[in-house]
Amino acid sequence: MANGLTHFDESGRAIMVDVTQKPDTDRTAVASGRIRMSAEAMRTIREGTAAKGDVLGVARIAGIMAAKRTGELIPLCHPLPLGSCSVEFRMAEDANEVEAVCTASLRGQTGVEMEALTGVSVALLTIYDMCKAIDKRMEITDVRLVKKTGGKSGAFFRCGAARGEGGRDA
Amino acid sequence: MANGLTHFDESGRAIMVDVTQKPDTDRTAVASGRIRMSAEAMRTIREGTAAKGDVLGVARIAGIMAAKRTGELIPLCHPLPLGSCSVEFRMAEDANEVEAVCTASLRGQTGVEMEALTGVSVALLTIYDMCKAIDKRMEITDVRLVKKTGGKSGAFFRCGAARGEGGRDA
Amino acid sequence: MANGLTHFDESGRAIMVDVTQKPDTDRTAVASGRIRMSAEAMRTIREGTAAKGDVLGVARIAGIMAAKRTGELIPLCHPLPLGSCSVEFRMAEDANEVEAVCTASLRGQTGVEMEALTGVSVALLTIYDMCKAIDKRMEITDVRLVKKTGGKSGAFFRCGAARGEGGRDA
Amino acid sequence: MANGLTHFDESGRAIMVDVTQKPDTDRTAVASGRIRMSAEAMRTIREGTAAKGDVLGVARIAGIMAAKRTGELIPLCHPLPLGSCSVEFRMAEDANEVEAVCTASLRGQTGVEMEALTGVSVALLTIYDMCKAIDKRMEITDVRLVKKTGGKSGAFFRCGAARGEGGRDA
Amino acid sequence: MANGLTHFDESGRAIMVDVTQKPDTDRTAVASGRIRMSAEAMRTIREGTAAKGDVLGVARIAGIMAAKRTGELIPLCHPLPLGSCSVEFRMAEDANEVEAVCTASLRGQTGVEMEALTGVSVALLTIYDMCKAIDKRMEITDVRLVKKTGGKSGAFFRCGAARGEGGRDA
Amino acid sequence: MANGLTHFDESGRAIMVDVTQKPDTDRTAVASGRIRMSAEAMRTIREGTAAKGDVLGVARIAGIMAAKRTGELIPLCHPLPLGSCSVEFRMAEDANEVEAVCTASLRGQTGVEMEALTGVSVALLTIYDMCKAIDKRMEITDVRLVKKTGGKSGAFFRCGAARGEGGRDA
Repeated sequence: MANGLTHFDESGRAIMVDVTQKPDTDRTAVASGRIRMSAEAMRTIREGTAAKGDVLGVARIAGIMAAKRTGELIPLCHPLPLGSCSVEFRMAEDANEVEAVCTASLRGQTGVEMEALTGVSVALLTIYDMCKAIDKRMEITDVRLVKKTGGKSGAFFRCGAARGEGGRDA
Repeated sequence: MANGLTHFDESGRAIMVDVTQKPDTDRTAVASGRIRMSAEAMRTIREGTAAKGDVLGVARIAGIMAAKRTGELIPLCHPLPLGSCSVEFRMAEDANEVEAVCTASLRGQTGVEMEALTGVSVALLTIYDMCKAIDKRMEITDVRLVKKTGGKSGAFFRCGAARGEGGRDA
Repeated sequence: MANGLTHFDESGRAIMVDVTQKPDTDRTAVASGRIRMSAEAMRTIREGTAAKGDVLGVARIAGIMAAKRTGELIPLCHPLPLGSCSVEFRMAEDANEVEAVCTASLRGQTGVEMEALTGVSVALLTIYDMCKAIDKRMEITDVRLVKKTGGKSGAFFRCGAARGEGGRDA
Repeated sequence: MANGLTHFDESGRAIMVDVTQKPDTDRTAVASGRIRMSAEAMRTIREGTAAKGDVLGVARIAGIMAAKRTGELIPLCHPLPLGSCSVEFRMAEDANEVEAVCTASLRGQTGVEMEALTGVSVALLTIYDMCKAIDKRMEITDVRLVKKTGGKSGAFFRCGAARGEGGRDA
Repeated sequence: MANGLTHFDESGRAIMVDVTQKPDTDRTAVASGRIRMSAEAMRTIREGTAAKGDVLGVARIAGIMAAKRTGELIPLCHPLPLGSCSVEFRMAEDANEVEAVCTASLRGQTGVEMEALTGVSVALLTIYDMCKAIDKRMEITDVRLVKKTGGKSGAFFRCGAARGEGGRDA
Repeated sequence: MANGLTHFDESGRAIMVDVTQKPDTDRTAVASGRIRMSAEAMRTIREGTAAKGDVLGVARIAGIMAAKRTGELIPLCHPLPLGSCSVEFRMAEDANEVEAVCTASLRGQTGVEMEALTGVSVALLTIYDMCKAIDKRMEITDVRLVKKTGGKSGAFFRCGAARGEGGRDA
């Protein structure tokens, strides 16, 4: 390990760390993120969920499918047989924002926070893709780990979902 | 098209839009995003670039490789033979932030903004992965399109990189 | 070519045939297929499209995404930058069947019939997956090419959608 | 779960169901399907297996490779480290049909019926691809689960391979 | 470009070089490589090609499929819609070696030498995999570019297939 | 099994062998290989590692990422959730060669030698790609298994790293 970075060996070479001696435990991770958009884009998404053009339905599938492939995208992540994955959206209409929350879990030797973060990111990118004809200025923001349980390092809970609030470890 | 959403047909069904009648033109897109972290994580990355543990070098490769696979990740994106891709990082050390900028281009029938945005997102997720043993509270933020040229809809330039500033179409 | 099989050379070795000297032309293919199921599964799908549990929406995305990756699945298919893709479903409720129709197109050097057939197959497999807790006896049937235009071999139209009817070349 | 569909939560949102609390058990699935073709295509395949142009050998590899990637293709399928996979073909020459049978197994937390069905489908699509220069009217038909063992829901055996015969649960 | 390495910019950052301004031309590449093995493994492969256990048939498919995915494997390679690909084997029985030759071509903006080299490598790795129960000491050797045509840099021909002989540029 | 080839059944059909009844054990494999190049290419790589254009850093990431995807590339390999992976390089400057060594491990039902060999091969192919503007005559050579532990067949150690020396089983 170089400089506290577990993904490098003592010579500074990138490695996929050895988890083979770790016990299988139940592990869960929750990540969230938001996409900010124009009022028009927001209205279009809201109408779509009720009737035609289900943007969030497509984005949910994209997020779940990407979470399953995290090990292909993030170079030093372990490939994992994910045990569950879901993506939820909350529409904060006063702020013209959609929040995505991805929950992933596994009984295995290593954690799934990257899976949850990847699921959130790709779900939000998919919303961007589907609404970009209406609004090219959308911004994906506040993508972060909300919660993590299982594993040797213990549980992690981020307090305060609102931007700028500090979190705290439980 | 339903409600201005090009990715749905008139019945609201998701489709991959037909670009076969569009001419090949030169297209470029630039996207950016940032990851905020603790001073310790920031210091570790900075030291890594100089010597051991090159976090940004790994993240750059991850971003480029993901940009090439955008069509696999974003459900209604066209699969594209990307003509170039690069990822740059800027370390805003006073703010303990790393900014990623991804530039993608193509001579083809459709634009590459999703490729640039995907490259940025996966590069930043990779930084998260590599530094998460030091700081689980990092946040990916302000992922957005900066510039887009080529194609029928004309050029797009976002003015003002700083958060909260409005952009303007050129 | 061995025995009229274009995917083998004169020695019988599998090859990906050379299309580099063929001109780019507009090409389209339409394929269809059906899944037969119990009345209960059929009712569940129908209710889902109206309200909760949109089986067909998920299956549509799966079909489009798989069509884009046809070249990875079918060993001697050319990898193609698909120019458009859509999947439609028709519910033949008297017969407790869902029909899927996938349309793919491209301006390029080779045809897209395998893309259309792969899109249909994966869309129907996804319906199976989502309904298998209700009915394990579902059958995917009558997966076939309906239409093909563009390319040297001329247009192909299959006459008669109903099972057992003979088709004819146009 | 919405409407008996396990792949949706109580709000009708698509999810990858949680299998993390299920025990590892031995699981097997067998699926079959057929492709109907002209007498000429059938003759070509038969000659190929004996000498040049081994259509079925290529299709077998395609089926096995696709079965391994089922979790990438079917949106809500768990990614699984498949423990075995085989594809067999039977040539029903009186009927000008090739039947494919795919057997998959795993010691794990969830079943492999989708892997077996995907293996059959891609094997048959590959036969289509390789023979389409001879016969564009081939049809893939009767793709279905034949047998499934292991897991909480008990064994499933389909009785009667011939079309139209009803099956029965064992 | 740093130090003559086209895959780095002037600051030494890895990039996928810009080919968007290059004209489409016909490009071909041929690569070869060998695997050395025990007499027993060699005999088994030879018998397999004649009757049961067609090692080379499986390896050929693996090589072609991998060549199509070169852009996913090699970080700074352009993703390319390959126009043709074939893999041939020659059994040098006196030397207990199998030679693989992969030919790839494309009409496009960049060359296909990496596709040919990847096809050879994966074909030979597949032979290793299939024979490793008999011989774990097999060695893959002399993987190299044999020929390259098309593109600005002109044709390249390696003279002398035998090991140790020098090549020459045409 | 046909002719001692475990990847074929008794009829000579390719299969993915059944490992479901094997116990999970700790398994490790080490593979190595070399790439020979011109003095100029060698010098460029050496300078890159010290300053700009880190060829080996990119190749290391490519090797690790490819090792994770071995099951997608090698037709009859089991898809495996790799537990660790690293790639090291040694520069034999007197010989103008770079040696790559890939170590992979897993607690599981089958061995990881193909993962180690694939990691070596793709790392070396990536070096080729990045230096090919300087030297098209590079050769990848001596790709082989160095060591394997775990599993029923016992440990394997190859003695003598230098070319041409015989190995011996431990």
